[in-house]
Amino acid sequence: MNQNYIKPNNWSIIEEGFQTDRVKSSESLFSIGNGAMGQRANFEEHYSGPTFQGSYIAGVYYPDKTRVGWWKNGYPEYFAKVLNAPNWIGINVEINGEQLDLFTCKRVENFKRELNMQEGWLSRHFVATLKNGITIEVITKRFLSLELDEVGAIQYSLKPINSDAEITLKPYLDSGITNEDTNWDDKFWDTTNVVHDNHQAFIEAKTMKTSFNTCTFMESQVFINDKALKIEPRINVEANYVSFSYKHQVKQNETYTIHKFGGYVVDTKHDKNELISAAKTVLKTALKAGFNTLLEDQKTAWKVIWSMSDITISGDVKAQQGIRFNIFQLNQTYLGRDSRLNIGPKGFTGEKYGGSTYWDTEAYCIPFYMATKDQKVARTLLEYRYNHLAKAIENAEKLGYSNGAALYPMVTMNGEECHNEWEITFEEIHRNGAIAFAIYNYQRYTGDYSYLPEKGLEVLIGIARFWHQRATFSTDKNRYVILGVTGPNEYENNVNNNWYTNYLAQWCINYTIENISKIEDEYASDFTRIMNKVKLSTLELAEWKSVAQNMYIPYSDKHNIYLQQDGFLDKELITVKDLDKLQRPINQKWSWDRILRSPYIKQADVLQGFYFFEDQFTDEELERHFDFYEQFTVHESSLSPCVHSIQAAKLNRMDQAYTFYLRTSRLDLDDYNKEVHEGLHITSMAGTWMSIVEGFGGMRIKNNQLSFTPKIPDQWEAYSFKVNFRNQILKVHVSQTETKFELEGEAKLQLLVNNTPVSILPMHLVTI
Amino acid sequence: MNQNYIKPNNWSIIEEGFQTDRVKSSESLFSIGNGAMGQRANFEEHYSGPTFQGSYIAGVYYPDKTRVGWWKNGYPEYFAKVLNAPNWIGINVEINGEQLDLFTCKRVENFKRELNMQEGWLSRHFVATLKNGITIEVITKRFLSLELDEVGAIQYSLKPINSDAEITLKPYLDSGITNEDTNWDDKFWDTTNVVHDNHQAFIEAKTMKTSFNTCTFMESQVFINDKALKIEPRINVEANYVSFSYKHQVKQNETYTIHKFGGYVVDTKHDKNELISAAKTVLKTALKAGFNTLLEDQKTAWKVIWSMSDITISGDVKAQQGIRFNIFQLNQTYLGRDSRLNIGPKGFTGEKYGGSTYWDTEAYCIPFYMATKDQKVARTLLEYRYNHLAKAIENAEKLGYSNGAALYPMVTMNGEECHNEWEITFEEIHRNGAIAFAIYNYQRYTGDYSYLPEKGLEVLIGIARFWHQRATFSTDKNRYVILGVTGPNEYENNVNNNWYTNYLAQWCINYTIENISKIEDEYASDFTRIMNKVKLSTLELAEWKSVAQNMYIPYSDKHNIYLQQDGFLDKELITVKDLDKLQRPINQKWSWDRILRSPYIKQADVLQGFYFFEDQFTDEELERHFDFYEQFTVHESSLSPCVHSIQAAKLNRMDQAYTFYLRTSRLDLDDYNKEVHEGLHITSMAGTWMSIVEGFGGMRIKNNQLSFTPKIPDQWEAYSFKVNFRNQILKVHVSQTETKFELEGEAKLQLLVNNTPVSILPMHLVTI
Repeated sequence: MNQNYIKPNNWSIIEEGFQTDRVKSSESLFSIGNGAMGQRANFEEHYSGPTFQGSYIAGVYYPDKTRVGWWKNGYPEYFAKVLNAPNWIGINVEINGEQLDLFTCKRVENFKRELNMQEGWLSRHFVATLKNGITIEVITKRFLSLELDEVGAIQYSLKPINSDAEITLKPYLDSGITNEDTNWDDKFWDTTNVVHDNHQAFIEAKTMKTSFNTCTFMESQVFINDKALKIEPRINVEANYVSFSYKHQVKQNETYTIHKFGGYVVDTKHDKNELISAAKTVLKTALKAGFNTLLEDQKTAWKVIWSMSDITISGDVKAQQGIRFNIFQLNQTYLGRDSRLNIGPKGFTGEKYGGSTYWDTEAYCIPFYMATKDQKVARTLLEYRYNHLAKAIENAEKLGYSNGAALYPMVTMNGEECHNEWEITFEEIHRNGAIAFAIYNYQRYTGDYSYLPEKGLEVLIGIARFWHQRATFSTDKNRYVILGVTGPNEYENNVNNNWYTNYLAQWCINYTIENISKIEDEYASDFTRIMNKVKLSTLELAEWKSVAQNMYIPYSDKHNIYLQQDGFLDKELITVKDLDKLQRPINQKWSWDRILRSPYIKQADVLQGFYFFEDQFTDEELERHFDFYEQFTVHESSLSPCVHSIQAAKLNRMDQAYTFYLRTSRLDLDDYNKEVHEGLHITSMAGTWMSIVEGFGGMRIKNNQLSFTPKIPDQWEAYSFKVNFRNQILKVHVSQTETKFELEGEAKLQLLVNNTPVSILPMHLVTI
Repeated sequence: MNQNYIKPNNWSIIEEGFQTDRVKSSESLFSIGNGAMGQRANFEEHYSGPTFQGSYIAGVYYPDKTRVGWWKNGYPEYFAKVLNAPNWIGINVEINGEQLDLFTCKRVENFKRELNMQEGWLSRHFVATLKNGITIEVITKRFLSLELDEVGAIQYSLKPINSDAEITLKPYLDSGITNEDTNWDDKFWDTTNVVHDNHQAFIEAKTMKTSFNTCTFMESQVFINDKALKIEPRINVEANYVSFSYKHQVKQNETYTIHKFGGYVVDTKHDKNELISAAKTVLKTALKAGFNTLLEDQKTAWKVIWSMSDITISGDVKAQQGIRFNIFQLNQTYLGRDSRLNIGPKGFTGEKYGGSTYWDTEAYCIPFYMATKDQKVARTLLEYRYNHLAKAIENAEKLGYSNGAALYPMVTMNGEECHNEWEITFEEIHRNGAIAFAIYNYQRYTGDYSYLPEKGLEVLIGIARFWHQRATFSTDKNRYVILGVTGPNEYENNVNNNWYTNYLAQWCINYTIENISKIEDEYASDFTRIMNKVKLSTLELAEWKSVAQNMYIPYSDKHNIYLQQDGFLDKELITVKDLDKLQRPINQKWSWDRILRSPYIKQADVLQGFYFFEDQFTDEELERHFDFYEQFTVHESSLSPCVHSIQAAKLNRMDQAYTFYLRTSRLDLDDYNKEVHEGLHITSMAGTWMSIVEGFGGMRIKNNQLSFTPKIPDQWEAYSFKVNFRNQILKVHVSQTETKFELEGEAKLQLLVNNTPVSILPMHLVTI
């Protein structure tokens, strides 16, 4: 772990000193995004050292032909790849004819990078001495506008400090970029047009196969000591490249500055034949405001976000920095503005996981977005799956299901499955349950039942049909069984009767039946519309019920626990603490078969079910299962520690809860899994938020009311968070001695605090 | 199925008529080989239609870098590929300036291809009319010499039948060849030298990475009406190519003939710097003999093979043709002359399965080679694994085992694992058991115990150590279990307690312990040598015993059968006959997950164990297990029907046994699995042999004696086979009314026939 690399700071991520072997990791950590696009913290100027270049446009992907050693029937044709998009941030710099390159220059001093999370910008400062002896101080600032989400702005200033220097600034656009991750070294982009007009340039490029038409654009202004300079640039146009050269004789200690505005317009939002004119409109707005005004707007926009979603922690800067980093990255990734988008596990910070949608959204991210945004955002995330229902039915058909059964994909961009390991793609079917659970969770939290008759019930029916067909009857057990699955714990493959999956399947069917009845009673016209569409017979419904009622639930009488799957107790039950530390992490040290037959759990599995359905189990049951499974859990998935943190807090094991909290919140900052160079773990960041609000704060919904059981780790003086509950904003402040609730808005709010009813009036503070 | 494509014939495989869509299939079916090299039946002359070019040199392979979608720890670095080697058979033909090409010429008539199995040659006859109007009759004959196994010979004759014609014959060598199957489109061959000398040409080429140095060579002679012609050829040399052009004005009805001799010399047998001179020596010998003498030698060599290995069947030409095709192909593939070689599942007939060694050799091929060859051949096959013991230990170490535990690879060329599906590579560990069983089987049949103290025991100890370490103790079952395996039935992955695997593991340990004792008692100096090497403690031995004694054996009390694996009875037990025929073969119709959770068995699994260890079960037990498992077996592996045929015969179900026999013996000839274009199923052909000798003939070894329980299908008048039992040759002739035994040699032989002792004197015939 790089435990002490990032400087502890309440509001910023700060790196001091330039280490070439840390460049890729820092490119991930300092990533910026605005929901519509995002980019790794690559340098503007040329860098010849090891770097992982990445700039991503939300929703723009490539269907990379599936590559496997041995083809198996049912594999999807392609794996959707998030695309490294044309580079618009580039500004090459020549100083007395020598290219500025931090990898090759003589000396780099006072290097400092800051990601200011409060205001939403990235800056860099350094003093470089070139081979030609010129020492130059560079200060940069960059942000992607939240307000104008097709544009970003860069301020790049250079000051020669030991002599005058001829400096050439070369802002450029480059569509000759590649992905690090391609299956067949295919070309992903086809550049169709490279044009320039005055100080503006445009590259039109189309993705191969998917035909997303994009226009990457830029416009620049240069200044000496903040005074605008009129320089006619030399223009260089190539097949995939255009650059402007602004050459100037800069005096010692003068500051030569460029403001570069750039970004993307895409045919998902504009007419594909009008992309250049759309880009000109964007540039006109940005230029008219100018860098400083855009920056002020950025600060304001982030202020609005933070005013709702901030969590404060006093007395523990690392914990504070961790949670803010998590909240910041979530907001950089997804803002709920476009129902075609979703939350990729690595957001806009890397190529891994293809930038696609996983069950992470429903299982981990929805609570965060429900509580810190308008509830429409969560509803938009639900609608994303509703819009993919036909594809989920198609996907199920490909695997042999019929009659409208829906199997949502493990990984998707457009509703089609695009993952290709059989043990995941075909078998990790619990994802279907998370999608149903999210509907329940949304309705429970927001109280907005309307989503079900309007859209949700159709999704639930498709999912219930899948479980009905997927379960088979075991005459031996005289029960329905679900054979050959992979549960949330991916260190088991092709197991029978994974408890989590069976329990969830049973719940999905029951929940669907319950809501069919309710909608029949209370939303007659919706009911008729839906039934005309899905053609659900009473016979089929009776069969569903039979499956749910007779679902096999693996249980050990000896241990008095639900079994993760059939045969779990046949394993050598050596606990993690008795496992040689040199063998960890097992996913790097052991062959796959050894992992599979071991008892070690990659991420919460039975405990994930206890998290979802907490109110169906007693605290004693939770404790027993936590004690049994935690001892075998290696948390080698980013999605694991948050669930354990919440449950440890519930069981009053605050030290353990705190340890899990640090692990989840600083997973990337401290690089626990030695892989941050590949990108950040965005979706698990929502789990971090849950571990404070639901874990320490103990927030639950009980009978349409908010309920809290506030606790606080010894290491903290106090913490606070806000939630938007049914359009009322409640601020919760927990210290070692008391809990304070503060309500915005106009109506009073009934709470449960430690199971005692509490009534709060608007604009009042209640201390408990 | 192409049921009626190949003409029924006792001694030949015959195709009549030219169908371009059958070219690839016929290229497989008419393949020729001599144990040292082999080739698909590609045309000598240029063919522009769909074709699968293949010429293979035994033991020459390329380590193709592993390609998987998601890398898992423990994957081998490469998959060994059998290499399409430089083409030496090529003879292009120009007639009045037009290239002869059966795909584009105006008309092809009287096309007939014959693979004469009795004499070991391939011929082709056709009359082609070219676009230029010339009609030409072509007759070719080709063989790979059994005697001079580095050389092959071609006689290619043309007769213009409607006018005179200028004919140019262009024999060539071409090393610019590629594999159909490559992971990364790597170049596999590096041509280092192309030279010619008089009528001879040589291409030296080296395999990339593995650096096998080869020299491909040719020399040609031309004739008019069998009279030698002196033509100085025009010579064309390119980077990877050399051709000679023999142009001649051929009169109508004259026959223009070329004899081309060619082949390979390899540095596995020659000094790599002397390859051309080695090739010249080979050519000198071949040319001195000439085509006709070489052909006579070929007939003689095959006569010797057939005199020992032939099986006759009267009254059923298709059955007769089937068994001879199987015996012929086995002899073309492996003759036991080189201990570095083995029997690839596709022999020299295609690229699939990499031409590598699988457990097929030990489980299926050894009995054939033991009974139809000198027993040294079988011993050579055992030594192949002894020579790979160090690599098997290394392979086990890579997967976390220690202390000399040996895991033989699933697929190998040189002892290293080179397969890369985790569910096979890491989990199909029963292969280790087959290797131990083969030692037992060899000793049982040949009576040659000396292999054990000399070499076999070390292999057994490595294998026993593996099973000891691989089994883990289940406190729940109070037994040792073997978790996470794939059994012979590859339609199950990552299952627990596969009966076959557990039973075999137990047997391996017991058999090893038994032989350690025997060798300690009877081979003291070998014992000391081995123990000094393997350092086996009494404690370890005690642990082995404990594992074997306490091995968990899955059993169903309800069905009174051993269970294929834990949880098998949880499946939906719909029998194959109740399965919609449109769903077959399931490996082409169903997604992998559906196959996995189905009850369908790809190949004998529990029944494979019953086959190996028949004497440990009663006939009633066999019948019960056969009845239970056969109904779920889809036989989608080539290795399955033979075992079921043997067991059906044992159970007196002769119709069923006959059906399975036809399926196994004509699998390729009738293309049951619609894949013969990829190559032939060589290793399962040994299973066909077993289904007659062990199935119908009922041959077993009981207390060091041959035992028979002869049966005969209604469809046959009679059948006969010969076995070499401990250097005595016994011929068995079974008709509908009697069985006759005939003994060669000098000593008398004690048999059991239908469990009654029978004594046979040499050169006598006994009728029963």
